[in-house]
Amino acid sequence: MLAHDIDVCQYYGVMRKKIAEIEDCCPVLREPLDPEEASRLADAMRVLADPARLRLLSLIAAGPGGEACVCTLVDPMSLSQPTVSHHLSVLHEAGLLDRERRGRWVYYRVRPERLEPIREALAPPPPVPLSA
Amino acid sequence: MLAHDIDVCQYYGVMRKKIAEIEDCCPVLREPLDPEEASRLADAMRVLADPARLRLLSLIAAGPGGEACVCTLVDPMSLSQPTVSHHLSVLHEAGLLDRERRGRWVYYRVRPERLEPIREALAPPPPVPLSA
Repeated sequence: MLAHDIDVCQYYGVMRKKIAEIEDCCPVLREPLDPEEASRLADAMRVLADPARLRLLSLIAAGPGGEACVCTLVDPMSLSQPTVSHHLSVLHEAGLLDRERRGRWVYYRVRPERLEPIREALAPPPPVPLSA
Repeated sequence: MLAHDIDVCQYYGVMRKKIAEIEDCCPVLREPLDPEEASRLADAMRVLADPARLRLLSLIAAGPGGEACVCTLVDPMSLSQPTVSHHLSVLHEAGLLDRERRGRWVYYRVRPERLEPIREALAPPPPVPLSA
């Protein structure tokens, strides 16, 4: 394995860990985030803040049976297969996609529950109590 | 006005427009996003995918009366005042903060309703209908 690959794997390892770690963390408008929480949440949001990755999530969710194969994703994305595969790997390593090999192709499925911690982190503040 | 300032203003103009434009747009897991929708949503998410900006939102929301002055935000952020002011401007131009000048200071207040379009865009898919 080349040094580059090791770097990439370590990067993905960190990313996956950080996405998993924002569960029950980081309610932005409900308590002051400490620097470490803010960093974790920003890392998780950075996985999503990319037009190609958002489109891939969307195309997979809209696929027959809620799944899609890289073989059907390259054409609508207008990107090379290696680039599409790279974005799918980022999403998978971040925990946002399940994948399963069938024959020569890998099929992907969105894990919608993994978006919930991000939605929760952006939830509105608690209502202000009425003064007596 | 220097060319740099004009560039920055044009950039902020685009950013503000894009945040406003994701309302009623881009339900990632409910329909396939087209490239333009994905780009708008990614731009909006990129405003938030930054640890300093997430912390600022959080510190302002937790301030007395739900507001804060840049004068009280510099110390906890451990950043220079120009850097804090820059991030506050990005958040304000993106529509996520209201601001009001009082005497020599500017006070900021979070607009929680502006986070809702992002939360909506990440909502889970509709339930699968039971087959007969």
